[in-house]
Amino acid sequence: MTGSLITKKKIAKVFKKLVADIGFEKVTIAKIMKESNMRRQTFYDYFQDKYELADWIFRQEAIEKIEDNLAYEGWQFIVENLFVYFEENQVFYRRILTFEGQNSFQEYYTQHLKALIRQVLVVKKQADEGLGEADRIFLEEFYANAFVSLTTKWIIDGCKIDSYRFSEQMKIAFLMGFEERQ
Amino acid sequence: MTGSLITKKKIAKVFKKLVADIGFEKVTIAKIMKESNMRRQTFYDYFQDKYELADWIFRQEAIEKIEDNLAYEGWQFIVENLFVYFEENQVFYRRILTFEGQNSFQEYYTQHLKALIRQVLVVKKQADEGLGEADRIFLEEFYANAFVSLTTKWIIDGCKIDSYRFSEQMKIAFLMGFEERQ
Repeated sequence: MTGSLITKKKIAKVFKKLVADIGFEKVTIAKIMKESNMRRQTFYDYFQDKYELADWIFRQEAIEKIEDNLAYEGWQFIVENLFVYFEENQVFYRRILTFEGQNSFQEYYTQHLKALIRQVLVVKKQADEGLGEADRIFLEEFYANAFVSLTTKWIIDGCKIDSYRFSEQMKIAFLMGFEERQ
Repeated sequence: MTGSLITKKKIAKVFKKLVADIGFEKVTIAKIMKESNMRRQTFYDYFQDKYELADWIFRQEAIEKIEDNLAYEGWQFIVENLFVYFEENQVFYRRILTFEGQNSFQEYYTQHLKALIRQVLVVKKQADEGLGEADRIFLEEFYANAFVSLTTKWIIDGCKIDSYRFSEQMKIAFLMGFEERQ
């Protein structure tokens, strides 16, 4: 790990604790750096502001759980790991998600999930029914949106269902289509 | 149609035109009633404010397309009709949906869609795999959220795909699950 990555992770750790304790809005750069025992200027060597730091944490910790494992692990393992991570960091993410004007997580998350869906799943009967490119893109969008919207709601509501059960339900939603009622 | 329903519909018609022309924010009760050639007080006989009026229009026009047809028509017909309605009224809904703080449509819409999903679709292999009540509720939530989020995006982006094609894509999303890549 390079020196700069160690510093960034130290800053991130203090930031996460502060956000969980007093909320995203009340955290200032001065408070973060005082708590980190570092000069205020050091913050600006790595991040523009606390928004950029929050995004970096999300990419570094959550998105990497998707990207790093895409080639080696099944998607169900990746999803389960993601939910365990969110469950462990739920106070931080709840503070962030309920802070108005911070929607970039949901955007990033949707983008990365579309890549996950594309790489690890195939639509049932795709070959038989001649599903076109536009429909495939629509399906990715549809599933990624539902995934992000339910994950957000789950975190905001306090992770009442545990992460293993929650990933089990996501699995069911992805693998089952509907039939028309007779 | 009762006299009060005629009056409400008149007010709604003028309101929809005004919102489309000048935006939700700039519409005042005074402007609506002047344009309707009615006394300002008449508005308050029926509605508390313009938020309540906007909700009434949505329930009256969009939600009724779901409720009225639930017993007689297939869900694909209902969905197609809904999208045709939104396409025709896209300027009004675009204005409403991009007005911050007016999220009640999305909530209502999600609730009613869950009822639609529950009544007209059955999950594939439900019987075989012993899907419990909690999973069924999760699935309704999952599909209703994706439906609402993509519909909202479609309207905000200008209904670029026509309503028939868009309902075709929704149909595909509902009837097809995924398989794991081999």
